[in-house]
Amino acid sequence: MRDLKRRLLDMVADDLAGIEKELHAHLRPHLDLVQETAGHLLFSGGKRFRPLLMVLCARLCGYEGDSDHKFSTAFEYIHAATLLHDDVVDGGTLRRGRPAAHKVYGGATTVLVGDFLLARALSIGADTGKLKVIQVLSQVTEDMAQGEIHQLMRKGHLELTEDEYMDVIRRKTAVLIQGACRVGAIIADADEHLERALGDYGLHVGLAFQMADDLLDYTAETAALGKIVGADLREGKITLPLIAARHQAEPEVRKRMDEMIGNPSFSEDAFFGLVEELSRCGGIDYTRNRAEEHIRAAKKALGVFEPSETKDILNHVADFALARKA
Amino acid sequence: MRDLKRRLLDMVADDLAGIEKELHAHLRPHLDLVQETAGHLLFSGGKRFRPLLMVLCARLCGYEGDSDHKFSTAFEYIHAATLLHDDVVDGGTLRRGRPAAHKVYGGATTVLVGDFLLARALSIGADTGKLKVIQVLSQVTEDMAQGEIHQLMRKGHLELTEDEYMDVIRRKTAVLIQGACRVGAIIADADEHLERALGDYGLHVGLAFQMADDLLDYTAETAALGKIVGADLREGKITLPLIAARHQAEPEVRKRMDEMIGNPSFSEDAFFGLVEELSRCGGIDYTRNRAEEHIRAAKKALGVFEPSETKDILNHVADFALARKA
Repeated sequence: MRDLKRRLLDMVADDLAGIEKELHAHLRPHLDLVQETAGHLLFSGGKRFRPLLMVLCARLCGYEGDSDHKFSTAFEYIHAATLLHDDVVDGGTLRRGRPAAHKVYGGATTVLVGDFLLARALSIGADTGKLKVIQVLSQVTEDMAQGEIHQLMRKGHLELTEDEYMDVIRRKTAVLIQGACRVGAIIADADEHLERALGDYGLHVGLAFQMADDLLDYTAETAALGKIVGADLREGKITLPLIAARHQAEPEVRKRMDEMIGNPSFSEDAFFGLVEELSRCGGIDYTRNRAEEHIRAAKKALGVFEPSETKDILNHVADFALARKA
Repeated sequence: MRDLKRRLLDMVADDLAGIEKELHAHLRPHLDLVQETAGHLLFSGGKRFRPLLMVLCARLCGYEGDSDHKFSTAFEYIHAATLLHDDVVDGGTLRRGRPAAHKVYGGATTVLVGDFLLARALSIGADTGKLKVIQVLSQVTEDMAQGEIHQLMRKGHLELTEDEYMDVIRRKTAVLIQGACRVGAIIADADEHLERALGDYGLHVGLAFQMADDLLDYTAETAALGKIVGADLREGKITLPLIAARHQAEPEVRKRMDEMIGNPSFSEDAFFGLVEELSRCGGIDYTRNRAEEHIRAAKKALGVFEPSETKDILNHVADFALARKA
């Protein structure tokens, strides 16, 4: 899997460099503090997953302009804006192994810099000259805000169903990735059925991506995550590994699980005990299987496209969404 | 002045009713909590000043469509989004005489509902079918975020200059009003010079509007404001009445003023003493005179338009921006 990652990074190295350059070029704040606060997060080793997908999807649809890297920054700016707001909202203290922006620059500035980035993204969207791009970006932003609110509302609700979980992760994560893929098709003036296919690809990649992320909270080395062990559980965030395991667990095991949910002070030992139970009750496997289904669905959606190097890369990206370790 | 207000309200009653209807119709959240949180602020007696200006400016430019009330909601949604975020950011507890939304629904939901409203505004902007509208809306939002950050950065800085103050209020307040007026022209397909004239009108009205607001903090009855007496001063917000008065004050008076700035615990008596000093040193008159200059400039900008009832109303609105008591 490390090999896949290295190979993939080689294939997209030029795009990543192009995206990075444009991310710097188009931030353009009036105030140094905005540059610094936005830069703290934006230039802290993000994968540029969303802009990269937009660029690849545009290429797959035959985009011939030279503004794809520029346009793709809209998706990283929106992503950064939501991370800034989410960290303020969740009180998250670490992000990519560094103190969260609001811990350094305060919640007030961080909220406002998030607003700035959202607006910047829409400005760049307008530069595409296509209203449909604006419709996608604004709809995505509406969905993401509501997905986050839904998750907040359901914190600590043990009865969260798998359907509700899927609806939350679709909005809070998948729609942005889906939007990036659709906009790639839109700026290439692709036919509607190709835009729809890439939208489906992005949706399924996005769902698998979030499921993989939720798995990591129970399976990754803390250091690799740059987060605090069991953070989701501590916050009362009910994710699929837990939903699936609770469903299978014997009553007394379920009771033990439930006592840990939303309890911010459980020990690391207790947490690793829970992880064993989750695994034993099939919560980990179930989640991984469901995520793999979405990866298969993503690849299937690409079926309408002729074989090409770009299509290969998009297939690899789908695998990577699930395989990533951090 | 009460007469002016009543007359003005009569003249725009149909527009206000139309705007109100569309504000309800286009909020359209997926979650009840979003409806409730957004509605807490949106339907708490706002003046609809920004949408009304857009509608009037569109009419002045001969707009013939039937979507002006709908499009104008974008400006109220952006306004509401920034109020929601500002109250979280400032820790403001009262808004229009009611508890601020974050006091009722929590900071997290309030930040996210603000994001939702921003996105909603851009969606509606896209419905105009004009990319220029999106450019205006996103530029306005960038400016507003930066104006707020600038003000935060300068909290308690006694040496804030009049120029810097003007730059802050232009961004945080005037650009949205300017944007509403410009978009009125844009949706009516008006010539550039008319769009520019209405932009100038909006800019000057917006500057006067904020100066009047800053005056109110030192001159209004607390009850009329629905805010806490001396709130700006308590927070260390340096506004023009203070800047101008400090400039004129004798050293020992200035020292007394400076001791109160950013001191959250001064007494009401001390505050009213300061107001007397501000007035004696000419801070109140100076601010009012500067605001009146902007009202004159706003009306002058309307000079390119032929006489009409709509033009009369816009002239009255300019007077009202300064004359309002709350």
